[in-house]
Amino acid sequence: MNKVTSTTLITPQIIAFEEPFTLQNGSVLPRFELIIETYGELNADKSNAVLICHALSGTHHVAGRHRPDDKHAGWWDNMVGSGKPIDTDKFFVIGLNNLGGCAGSTGPLSQNPKTGKDYGADFPLVTVKDWVRSQAKLADYFGIKTWAAVVGGSLGGMQALQWSIDFPERVRHALVIASSPRLSTQNIAFNDVARQAILTDPDFHEGHYTRFGTKPRRGLRIARMMGHITYLAEQGLGDKFGRKMREDAYKYNYDIEFEVESYLRYQGDKFADRFDANTYLLMTKALDYFDPVAEYGGSLQAALAHTTTHFFVASFSSDWRFSPKRSQELVKALIGAGKNVQYIEVESQHGHDAFLMEDKPYLDGVRAYMNNIKVSK
Amino acid sequence: MNKVTSTTLITPQIIAFEEPFTLQNGSVLPRFELIIETYGELNADKSNAVLICHALSGTHHVAGRHRPDDKHAGWWDNMVGSGKPIDTDKFFVIGLNNLGGCAGSTGPLSQNPKTGKDYGADFPLVTVKDWVRSQAKLADYFGIKTWAAVVGGSLGGMQALQWSIDFPERVRHALVIASSPRLSTQNIAFNDVARQAILTDPDFHEGHYTRFGTKPRRGLRIARMMGHITYLAEQGLGDKFGRKMREDAYKYNYDIEFEVESYLRYQGDKFADRFDANTYLLMTKALDYFDPVAEYGGSLQAALAHTTTHFFVASFSSDWRFSPKRSQELVKALIGAGKNVQYIEVESQHGHDAFLMEDKPYLDGVRAYMNNIKVSK
Repeated sequence: MNKVTSTTLITPQIIAFEEPFTLQNGSVLPRFELIIETYGELNADKSNAVLICHALSGTHHVAGRHRPDDKHAGWWDNMVGSGKPIDTDKFFVIGLNNLGGCAGSTGPLSQNPKTGKDYGADFPLVTVKDWVRSQAKLADYFGIKTWAAVVGGSLGGMQALQWSIDFPERVRHALVIASSPRLSTQNIAFNDVARQAILTDPDFHEGHYTRFGTKPRRGLRIARMMGHITYLAEQGLGDKFGRKMREDAYKYNYDIEFEVESYLRYQGDKFADRFDANTYLLMTKALDYFDPVAEYGGSLQAALAHTTTHFFVASFSSDWRFSPKRSQELVKALIGAGKNVQYIEVESQHGHDAFLMEDKPYLDGVRAYMNNIKVSK
Repeated sequence: MNKVTSTTLITPQIIAFEEPFTLQNGSVLPRFELIIETYGELNADKSNAVLICHALSGTHHVAGRHRPDDKHAGWWDNMVGSGKPIDTDKFFVIGLNNLGGCAGSTGPLSQNPKTGKDYGADFPLVTVKDWVRSQAKLADYFGIKTWAAVVGGSLGGMQALQWSIDFPERVRHALVIASSPRLSTQNIAFNDVARQAILTDPDFHEGHYTRFGTKPRRGLRIARMMGHITYLAEQGLGDKFGRKMREDAYKYNYDIEFEVESYLRYQGDKFADRFDANTYLLMTKALDYFDPVAEYGGSLQAALAHTTTHFFVASFSSDWRFSPKRSQELVKALIGAGKNVQYIEVESQHGHDAFLMEDKPYLDGVRAYMNNIKVSK
């Protein structure tokens, strides 16, 4: 068996789906590709497959490294690997970049077969439901009839939840972490500010910026800086930076004075370099649109009535973007619908980002749940 | 006696100070003007004067109207007037636009005597301490030795607090509402994002945008949209807008879909029309810089040890930008220093903006406090 560690070299694969794919909004993609990574081995009856769904800015690169000199391992390397909470010695784990993404799956940066140029703003808006259907095609490709588990944090958790509603027979366990059954008004509001920052950037060119050899860096940077604050808890941010200054005295200008400013600008710059603006826009819309409650006449319990999936739900005390209250709504609806659910609320100072962090009680909670999932040898 | 009601026509006055004024950062303004409004009558021994300090985007126009057809009265008209909590039948109330403002006081839009052009980015950064000193000059102008009270919410509350530290003999009562003895790291972070949105707007032209006949509208709009979310409570925003949509179905584009988007964009547009970007920048820096704790060796109690001012402190349960915890720090330091303080924590769904709202328990609290302030007939 190949052990997967933080230094294991992983090679992504691209899976092509050559049939037309109709999206929720009616648009048709003539074909699409998903870039994925896999960890561990699929067992004979294919009962040990786990799908990892990413959040707004995530990718298929969940664990291990691409090159020996990579500075960082995959984004959930503390969660996925040999002997880790999602143990690749037991499970066959797939990470993918979602449709519409900018890490290698078909998205705004891909070539539009109709024009021969990249899609840009012409790439259709995709929804969580679309992602789940595209992920079902991925399962088909591997001959996986039923996932042992679909796992995700934040927007990833929404996908896990949608799986349990749209394809309950194809997912035995859904792990819905730091997520919400629908966005709050405040969340929608923050998303709209982020989008407006990008849409009004003069370098946006109505989404066709690549044709102009440019990129709405300013807007993307502002969106990320703002977003980043909301992913962290006030207390955690305060503990880390306080009012620490770069120099002893105030400079009385708009350069960096406080360390937190330096940190945030760095985060914004880094993100603006690596991420595509159209993907950012469509990811935030997917968040806004996600609403199984509305689809089932305003009742989350009704949305979940037919599911046979078992649930693990986790929230973090200082997460104010997807607060424990939102997870509790989901848990209550699941209990009300008579479903099988485990819930942990983790004490944490890390806000929404806690779901990505090294935190023993949290990781142990996931580990215990995953250990109890039965798979054939 | 002239009654002051919401429809009373008020005429602002401009007071000129012709002597050089040295700011905390060492810059010297050769002269400056403050635009003010007054309500009620100054009594013979000048013991009934109340100063209203404004917050980030406030003005001198506190109560009444400028023209009969004005759509709105002044920004604190529910607080200041005949028979209102700050009763102009008893008190002589002054509202001013702060130095560096854009509503008529000397600021970035004013003419720089050195160049004959407007200051723009050359207007020096002013601090809360500078404002208090400029307000002391205003008191001198009226022959007011001691304010009966200095009152402010948010950044205005910081000015009231600074008055009690810098000129305790000149202020009998400080009303510090929805404020904080220093910004949290999160607050500084939000301010920096707002500033970056403005500073990186191509129309900013290093702060000399008026010379280019333009204005960094995009940046100002984004800053205000983001700020606005943080001034409201998640619950209040949810109660008001929920997920209400413009149309029945999703449009799958970036036009307005949710009512909260429409509301926010409107707020952003309105603000970008009326406000000056350089003033916005310097106001946020004044917030960041405010730190009497640092000035007194890290102890708020030490900063307050010498004050003779009496305090009224109010906070609002859902205010997460200047949370009750921050007011409680102030109250604890005041009690620790053996000072006279009344504190109310008001239950409210309106977040930070609650200090501007019609809320009976809150307004009654201020009313009761102000009623107990003794003034000569």
